[in-house]
Formats: sequence, structure tokens, C-alpha cells
Amino acid sequence: MKPSIYSNFIDRSYRPSRKDFVVEFSVRPGRGVSFEKAAGMVAGESSIGTWTKISTLNERIVRTLKPSIFYLNKKSHTIKIAYPGDLFEPGNIPQMLSSIAGNVFGMKGISGLRLEDIDFPNYFIKKFKGPRFGIKGVRKKLRVKKRPLLGTIVKPKLGLTAKEHAGVAFNAWIGGCDIVKDDENLSSMKFNKFGKRLKETLRLRDRAEKITGERKEYMPNVTAPFKEMLGRAKTARSLGSAYAMVDIVTVGWSALQQFRSDCPPLILHAHRAGHAAFTRSKDHGISMLVLAKLCRLIGMDQLHVGAIVGKMEGAKEEVQAIGEEIEDRVVQPDRKNHVLAENWLKTEPMFAVCSGGLHPGKVPLLVRAMGNDIIIQMGGGIHGHPSGTLAGSRAARYAVEASLKGIPLKHFAKTHLELDSAIKLWGALK
Amino acid sequence: MKPSIYSNFIDRSYRPSRKDFVVEFSVRPGRGVSFEKAAGMVAGESSIGTWTKISTLNERIVRTLKPSIFYLNKKSHTIKIAYPGDLFEPGNIPQMLSSIAGNVFGMKGISGLRLEDIDFPNYFIKKFKGPRFGIKGVRKKLRVKKRPLLGTIVKPKLGLTAKEHAGVAFNAWIGGCDIVKDDENLSSMKFNKFGKRLKETLRLRDRAEKITGERKEYMPNVTAPFKEMLGRAKTARSLGSAYAMVDIVTVGWSALQQFRSDCPPLILHAHRAGHAAFTRSKDHGISMLVLAKLCRLIGMDQLHVGAIVGKMEGAKEEVQAIGEEIEDRVVQPDRKNHVLAENWLKTEPMFAVCSGGLHPGKVPLLVRAMGNDIIIQMGGGIHGHPSGTLAGSRAARYAVEASLKGIPLKHFAKTHLELDSAIKLWGALK
Repeated sequence: MKPSIYSNFIDRSYRPSRKDFVVEFSVRPGRGVSFEKAAGMVAGESSIGTWTKISTLNERIVRTLKPSIFYLNKKSHTIKIAYPGDLFEPGNIPQMLSSIAGNVFGMKGISGLRLEDIDFPNYFIKKFKGPRFGIKGVRKKLRVKKRPLLGTIVKPKLGLTAKEHAGVAFNAWIGGCDIVKDDENLSSMKFNKFGKRLKETLRLRDRAEKITGERKEYMPNVTAPFKEMLGRAKTARSLGSAYAMVDIVTVGWSALQQFRSDCPPLILHAHRAGHAAFTRSKDHGISMLVLAKLCRLIGMDQLHVGAIVGKMEGAKEEVQAIGEEIEDRVVQPDRKNHVLAENWLKTEPMFAVCSGGLHPGKVPLLVRAMGNDIIIQMGGGIHGHPSGTLAGSRAARYAVEASLKGIPLKHFAKTHLELDSAIKLWGALK
Repeated sequence: MKPSIYSNFIDRSYRPSRKDFVVEFSVRPGRGVSFEKAAGMVAGESSIGTWTKISTLNERIVRTLKPSIFYLNKKSHTIKIAYPGDLFEPGNIPQMLSSIAGNVFGMKGISGLRLEDIDFPNYFIKKFKGPRFGIKGVRKKLRVKKRPLLGTIVKPKLGLTAKEHAGVAFNAWIGGCDIVKDDENLSSMKFNKFGKRLKETLRLRDRAEKITGERKEYMPNVTAPFKEMLGRAKTARSLGSAYAMVDIVTVGWSALQQFRSDCPPLILHAHRAGHAAFTRSKDHGISMLVLAKLCRLIGMDQLHVGAIVGKMEGAKEEVQAIGEEIEDRVVQPDRKNHVLAENWLKTEPMFAVCSGGLHPGKVPLLVRAMGNDIIIQMGGGIHGHPSGTLAGSRAARYAVEASLKGIPLKHFAKTHLELDSAIKLWGALK
């Protein structure tokens, strides 16, 4: 029995059906391997194939589960594969990734392989809850209708006591931040226990709300083994936090999905620490776009997507494409950026968080590139202000204000001293 | 306040203390950045630093939490950093990775960064259970004292019904396999539900045990969102399975740690599908060695480490180093392979699983390279046998037997026809 499966899965005339998963890969063949053969190896290893002909394959399997490579472009290294939906267990992200983002990365027959995008069929999207709050819900909670939200990360990353941490957060709120978050590697430390930090910080949040008349929120990092993570989220909720923050990459998909299901109604902030281990190369790994789509599907409300002008890599076009993917209802294909079409149906949009190496002088350019529906986070760019956190936070808020009003920062800085100091220290991008 | 932290963390005279985590990275600086500066950026971003001087840092934090880069070798791109243990929450793998395998991969100041190894302090290792069974426990369960264990993966990866699946497993057991496993992307499918597959397959396992007089085991893949995964493991246990199999990378650390805690006493088989998205490049990402260490720490009993002579990448020296790391009590440093010293204390050794593109003709070479304490898995190399699964399984078992006895395969094949057919089809390595 030697079904047509071994003809390398290429079928340029194939049109994806409504139940297919359409997946775009960038493929770089190994030495001595043709582009077509490499493409076929990827399609096979990610579905029903193996390296040799086997006796246990039958025609029924080939007919119902065979993937089709319907697009190949050797010059741009691009292939598109349509996978029959039955290859994937509905609602099971790890299983799906074990197929299309599993063994394929390690095959000797390829020298590089990048999972660029997945266009999910409607029935699969409907199996997920998506964001509980989304952009609308977060804006409602924060009572900020239009402007970009402003956040900070308490710095230094580690070392402050719970009381010191709360104090820094307080100054940030008073100065003008809407949201204050833990750093990605702060969980429950010897010098700063989760429960104590939460209590102290929320106490000062309430005071900051009274003083400023604005809504202020804290995002405690609950990253931990699953039950501990869920327990910390429940503690956060019971003490009056509106948020929980999770390091999605180091936590992983199985716990993240469960967390979305079991977590009390908290806004979920997704930090992507570690993503660049596999998203950074354009030749190999998984795109940040795929990560972002999975987060929206599962139901994070906010996600770090890059800061364009910050300390982390991520080209403008790529970050913009991710921004559109997580905020739009219907996504148009964009060949240059390896973006496939997607219809998100009723899935809520997710807030894009821009963070990493930002300071007030970078705000207008960032807002022009990304629009108002972003959360701008500055750590060093606030706590590094010559006059400290409160002044730094004020400078950042002024920068957002100037940006919204379309007033050049340097002009606005003339009457807003904290902004002036920030610009003198770090400069201002045009 | 400008503590010495900004002097880039380099201290060649520093000697790591008993509470330090020693971490080896390969660092490639970004354009215009010196090796020393790039090293300092890595140390800072993975601990208490950020991109600018901040007002909230104090001398106490610097004194107690500052990391020390105590080894730099520009030529080999190597640095070693000692991190004070208090930077990490004991028992929390995601938090630790968010520090040392987090933002660092995305910094513009580096063009490549690879986390090569982590030498854990004793107190941290003691926080983990390690493997419940380990090599000894698995051998006892399978009643195989010395020889490599032989396993197969039911193929094709997907498409067989539960009954067909069980039938293929049965033939593999009868032919000589000790263990039969699901493929990494088989979970609970429309055409093959987890519960039904489990029942059918375990029923035939029992029959195979009676017929052969040998112990036979099945490794059902429970990969799923956390509770579903745990539920499937409990079902497996209640129906008499000795094993559960998990795709560790696509499942992720938070759920994996919880699974080890909550899972009934099953032997845990760790499949690494997806690892090569970040382990493959020697310039960037995380080494397979680190993944393997985390698995041993958490307590997987068996882990895929590579097949050396198979279809997946992974150089001989690297796979051997991983094999030693997971099986030895005390690991000696090996500069060439970026292996640090480690003392595993009472942590049980973990079985190395060699899988991916193997066939009988490759067995002797594999055993010479890896020793007897391995599990040899063949999928295509068994089901692709000209006479089918049973004969393929027999051929594989003969290859193991010949290898143990030191008899050349071609010689042994003269009196063992199934082996002869396999060698005629795929050849035999010397």
C-alpha cells in the first residue's frame, strides 16, 4: 500500500476549505535538499508522515488527513499548507503546536524553518473564550476613554522590600501613571513576599486614587507553578486587585489555558519574557505574531508587543502588524509581513503594550506608529528621571498629553518642567 | 546615588558561593557594542538592572543581589555569571527562566545569546522532587535489568482509529518491543478518542504480556490544558497504565511542575516536540542541556535527547553530554560542550530516550555511543519493515540483542530473517 502521500503533499490547485488550518512557514532546505522536498518534509512531519514508507498507513487516512502545500515561493522561502482540521484537537493549544510547531524545527533536512502565521478556522476560534475584558473592558475599568494608558514597572526589577515597592508605585500613580506593574522576574521573593507586597501596594493604590481622583491599578505578577499561580490570582482578586500578570512564555500554554478558565474575573496582562529565544531569528523559530494570536485566542487582555523605539528588537512593520492582528476584527493578508487573513468573529480585541527602553521623548513617535489604543510602559524612563519617580511619572504623562494634543514635546516642555528635565536627559525623537 | 552596579558587573576575581546560581551564556554583541558591555547588559537585564540609571536603586540591593560576571572569553563567546540565589524563588521554574532566559534574548545590544548551562545550588535542587522512578524504577517496572529498552511509536502519527491503534501496538509488543507510545501530536482526536484508545490498547497490552511472558507497557500522550491533562493521567492510572507521556515544550513549565506534583504514581515520559525552535542555533536560544536539566529537576523519568544517527539534528558530543547530565550523580565540567559542574545530590537519574529516524541498522552504533541505559525508539524503522510491524519489531529486538552480544548485525541477520530484511531495506551503519 503506497498511497499518494509520498508524492510530497504539493498540490498547487488545492483551495483551503472552511475546516482547514492554513499555516505559513518560511523554509530553508538543508544541504542537498530541494525546496519542494523540504516543504514536503515539513508537511509530513507536522501531520501524518514519517521518514520512510510504513505498512500501517491506509487510504482512508490519506484521504481525510493529508495536508496540502498549495503555495510555494522559493525566492521568498514561503510555503502555505492547508491542514485538515481533524488533525487538531479543538481547544488544545499544546497538541496543535506539537503538530505544526513540534518536531519540524529539528529535522536534518531543513536548515531553517519559521512558523509565520496560522489562520484558524472559525469552528476552532469558537472553542476559545478570548479576552474577558479586552480593550473596551480595560478602558472602562480605568475610566480612560481615548488616550493611551500609561504604566510603569517598579524598578529595580528585584531588591525592593514590599513597603519600598508600594512606595515607588504610589509615587508613580501620583505623578500620572494609570497602571503599575511588577517586573517579569518578581514573584514571591525572600525579601519581598507576594502577599505582603500585594497588600501594601493596593493600600497605597487606594490612597492614590483618593488623592488624584483617577482610577489607579496594580498588576501583580503571579507567575508560578499552576496552583500557586491560581492561588496568587485569587488572593489578588480577594484583596481588590483588578489585574493579574503572567509571564506567558515561561509559564507555557497548558497552564495559561487553564488559568484563563479558572481565574477569577481579573484583567490578564501577558508579559512575553523569553519569547525572543525563538521569535528573534527571521530564518528559524516562531513569529511573535503567532504568539500574539494564541494569546488573543486563549484570552489575555493585554500583551507586550514591542516598543519599536525601545531597547528590544522588533521592526516597526512587524510590531504594527501584531498590533493590527490583536486589535482588528477582520485581518487582511499582508504578504510582505507574512500575515495571513483572519476573521476573529466575536473575539474581543487585546490591548497592545509597548514597553522596554521607553522614555517621554519617545512617546509621540510611538503613538503615531501605533495609535491611541496602546498601553505605554516606562520603567527606567520614569524612575531614572533626575528628580525621581514622581517627577518621571509626571513627565511621561505630559508626553502622552502633548502627543494627544499634537503639540511638539519641546514646546510643551517649556511650561512643563518635569518633561523638560526628561528631555534634557534622554532627548526627544522626532 | 550611583552604586557600582553600573560598572557592568564584571569581577574576574569573584568566586561563586554555595548559594549562587552559576550560568554560562554564549554572547554575541550587537553592532558597535563591546563584548564586555554586551556581557554587562545580559547580567543586568537578567537580574536587577535596566537601561538607565534609576533613582530607586539602593546600596543594600546592589550589595545583596548584584550578579558577578567572573569569566569572560571573547574568542569562544563565553561568559559565566554568578547570580545570588535570592534572585530566584525556590521551586519556581518560570520565575527563574523569566530572569535568566527572559528579556535578555530580545535586547538590541546583543545579536545572539545562548543560555548554555545552569549550575544550581544544592538548596535549590533540594526543593524539587526529581524523578519518582528514574532508570532503576523503570527497569524494575519493565523487568529488564541491563539491555537498552526497545520502544515504538504507533504510526502513522494520526489517523488510526482506537482499535487500529491498539492492533498496531499489539503487533509491536508481540514482535519484541517493551514500550509502545503515542505520537507527540496524538491526544484525543475526533477519529481516536483518548479514553477509548487507552482501553483498547491496555487490553491488548495485557494479552501481549500473557503471550510473550514479558512485561509490556503503553505510554498514552496526555498533552492538554492542565486539568484535562491531569484527568487523562488519572484515567490512565485507573485503567492500569504505568505511564503518562507529556509534550514538555508545548505544555510548558508551570503545568509541568504542577503535573509532577499532582499526578498519580505514573512513569513520566517527556517528549520534547518544539524544542528545536530555540535549541537548534548554536548562537541564540537555550541549549537542550538546560531543558534536560530542568526535566530532571522537576522529575520526568524519561526524556528524548536525540538519536545521533537519526533524522533530527543534534551532534554526537552534545547528545552524549546530555546523556551524562541526566544519568550521572556528579557531572564534571566540560568546557568544549559548555557543560558546567553539577551535583545532583539525591536526584534520581532520568532515562535517555533516543528516537527519530532510527532503524535496526543503526542500533549498534547508537548503543556504542550512548551505553545500555537508553530507550531506543523506532517508528518508521519498525512499521516500515517490508513485512509489517510485527516483523519490524522483531528485527529491532534482534538488533538490540546482537548489539548486546557484540555480534555484527550482518552476521546475526543470517539466522534472523526479519533483521536481514530490515538491513536489506535500510542498510546497516558500521
